[in-house]
Amino acid sequence: MTDQQMPTQTKRPRGRPRKAPADQLARKDLIRVGLVYLTERGFTDVSVDEILQASGKTKGTFYHHFKSKADYGEALIEAYHDYFAAKLQSCFSNERLSPLGRLREFVESAEAGMAKHDFRRGCLVGNLGQEMAALTPDMCTHLISVLNDWQKRTANCLQIARSEGQIAPDQDPEALAEFFWIGWEGAVLRAKLERRPEPLRHFASGFFSLLNNTPFSTPPFQTEGKQNV
Amino acid sequence: MTDQQMPTQTKRPRGRPRKAPADQLARKDLIRVGLVYLTERGFTDVSVDEILQASGKTKGTFYHHFKSKADYGEALIEAYHDYFAAKLQSCFSNERLSPLGRLREFVESAEAGMAKHDFRRGCLVGNLGQEMAALTPDMCTHLISVLNDWQKRTANCLQIARSEGQIAPDQDPEALAEFFWIGWEGAVLRAKLERRPEPLRHFASGFFSLLNNTPFSTPPFQTEGKQNV
Repeated sequence: MTDQQMPTQTKRPRGRPRKAPADQLARKDLIRVGLVYLTERGFTDVSVDEILQASGKTKGTFYHHFKSKADYGEALIEAYHDYFAAKLQSCFSNERLSPLGRLREFVESAEAGMAKHDFRRGCLVGNLGQEMAALTPDMCTHLISVLNDWQKRTANCLQIARSEGQIAPDQDPEALAEFFWIGWEGAVLRAKLERRPEPLRHFASGFFSLLNNTPFSTPPFQTEGKQNV
Repeated sequence: MTDQQMPTQTKRPRGRPRKAPADQLARKDLIRVGLVYLTERGFTDVSVDEILQASGKTKGTFYHHFKSKADYGEALIEAYHDYFAAKLQSCFSNERLSPLGRLREFVESAEAGMAKHDFRRGCLVGNLGQEMAALTPDMCTHLISVLNDWQKRTANCLQIARSEGQIAPDQDPEALAEFFWIGWEGAVLRAKLERRPEPLRHFASGFFSLLNNTPFSTPPFQTEGKQNV
């Protein structure tokens, strides 16, 4: 998963807001800044002071909203998850495309998101996953549940692909979705390291070959574009 | 790649040593400690002071051997690479096994290496790749070249598998090896996050399905073990 666009707004519940708008705005600002820093660097590498400086907020405001840096980390995972769950939902419910076309759309949109930031930003979930030793057990559990949610949505899409005959009846959508997310985080990491989109494309090509039970031979796949979708 | 056993010895060139043995020993100690810290945590998260404390060396000794923390980082990448290049060489040249059996052996040995440290340690190359923003351009180039070397060795193994008829003639060993390493780093990350071997096994199963142009359906593959090798 990548940080295509950081969430600037979250859906406000109907009815009277529980906190004053300015207060909510400060929280959103802190989250927006945190997402940028954490997708580009990491949790341990970024201090609360840096977040305060970049957001123009005081320490008092920060600790009014978050009990601790770990609590802030949890809020960042949640915000990132909400944003991407909506993004996946939007790709996977696009009925103008075939089921595999929807997955392809997600892959392309993730690449566009990384390209927008010159492949400097990775996936907040992948970045945090790499920092296990510095995270609380709650943060780790949260990260795993986020990945499981993304997998579940992807498995649903593959399930539809199978029921529509786009993939063979003996393929297992859940196993494939888990495989996709295990490897996709590796692809995001590699694209960030190399500062180029090829690792994302390469992984997606291999994955579509696996879906189609076809041999994996990059050049023809790349030149013929969406042949497998 | 994972940190099965840290290198304790490096190959000494023939002839008169350029530095005294005690001096070399101090360098080896610093590298050994650094590898443990960096596979478990990360480059930015670990300070030179911590390395000194854990190794019992002085700052003077550290800077006698390494110009800077970045220079030390380069030496760690090199040591890690040397160790794993030898490990891959040992798996891939095991002629008692079929070519795909050798790859399977590598996968199993990597899992055993992670299990030994309770899945707390990941891959130094993957960990550093995630910390791009904190690394020098030289370190990034170095990491990419290490991954390319591992890929090349894996591609050679797959090339032999193809020439011996273990994989179809229209499979591309280089594309497959790159796919493997992109995803494998994701699998190591996920295994570290979940503190369990399943992500490594799951990724390897999917990869062997891709090699064999067979559908990916986890349970039968797992219960029948090495059926595809």
